[in-house]
Amino acid sequence: MSFSPSLQELLDALRCLPGVGPKSAQRMALHLLEKDREGAARLVTALATAAERVGLCTRCRMLTEQELCPVCAATRRDDTLLCVVESPADLVAVEESGGYRGRYFVLLGRLSPLDGIGPAELGVDLLREQLGAGHVKELVLATSATVEGEATAAYLGSLATEFGVAASRIAHGVPMGGELEYVDSSTLFRAIESRTAVESV
Amino acid sequence: MSFSPSLQELLDALRCLPGVGPKSAQRMALHLLEKDREGAARLVTALATAAERVGLCTRCRMLTEQELCPVCAATRRDDTLLCVVESPADLVAVEESGGYRGRYFVLLGRLSPLDGIGPAELGVDLLREQLGAGHVKELVLATSATVEGEATAAYLGSLATEFGVAASRIAHGVPMGGELEYVDSSTLFRAIESRTAVESV
Repeated sequence: MSFSPSLQELLDALRCLPGVGPKSAQRMALHLLEKDREGAARLVTALATAAERVGLCTRCRMLTEQELCPVCAATRRDDTLLCVVESPADLVAVEESGGYRGRYFVLLGRLSPLDGIGPAELGVDLLREQLGAGHVKELVLATSATVEGEATAAYLGSLATEFGVAASRIAHGVPMGGELEYVDSSTLFRAIESRTAVESV
Repeated sequence: MSFSPSLQELLDALRCLPGVGPKSAQRMALHLLEKDREGAARLVTALATAAERVGLCTRCRMLTEQELCPVCAATRRDDTLLCVVESPADLVAVEESGGYRGRYFVLLGRLSPLDGIGPAELGVDLLREQLGAGHVKELVLATSATVEGEATAAYLGSLATEFGVAASRIAHGVPMGGELEYVDSSTLFRAIESRTAVESV
């Protein structure tokens, strides 16, 4: 017993979604066809529209429907700060933290020579252009705290030096509200190493 | 900061999938737009095609592209057995067990008066027709072992009696390979209650 051809093709197509295996694909497909045809139609339209309209911001490589994303189009942002993130989701996370008012640059990945991802794939040419324009004074490296993220940050740090721009790395340490006993040892190692002086009041 | 309108609409549309919350919707949408435009196009086509072509089998209510599903169209099946399941996934599961060679009937739900799901929504009229046709000798009730599933089985059991057809319920008990100490007490209760005589060799 197998499903009918177009249902089987739907099951296979759903597998391209991250985190969706055979069982969830089946659950999703049957749910849409059995109970939510309206939702299925909406998803078809939304996905087709988004795939057609959403491209990359010509300045920061954020996903956007316009030529410039909202952050790049905004006039009241600090042009001297440029924060480099790995993905659009990271940009949204930094924006939501509310602690940053500069510009962004989205790498859409991180250096990973074994997977064939080098500076060209991360849009480093575009980043060079912006560093070369002269208004950026500090490059904030907000790549992830993984081996590849650190390597990417190191590479971008030397790029900043090349352009005479200061580079900084976001702080790593114990998360706010985190209890020490549950923090993994590499984070704790980093937190102790990067300790800051307490000023006496 | 928010996403662009068509991206936001895609995030909302993905939420209609079962088990997808805001975070997974974001992960899926960004994955498709950043890294897998081909997969997105394939999903659009597959979903549109399936939604257009897949309907219900006119005899058993299984999802199919034809008028009759493969099981109903097959000639070498036992017409005297009719197995009632709740969903297309359940039908596939019973087929895969390999232990059944009769026909099926798919309820596409279970009795749940509070949600407005009564006999009419479960296609009971169609089931009556088939029981009335006279070839069915046994109705195998394979609804789930939940309160609603049991209520549905009880209702269908009395329906079978009405047509002079025997009704049986699939066995409930300790799963094969299951160790007793990890089996929940209601399953174990049922397993002890439904114990079967051991024949001496």
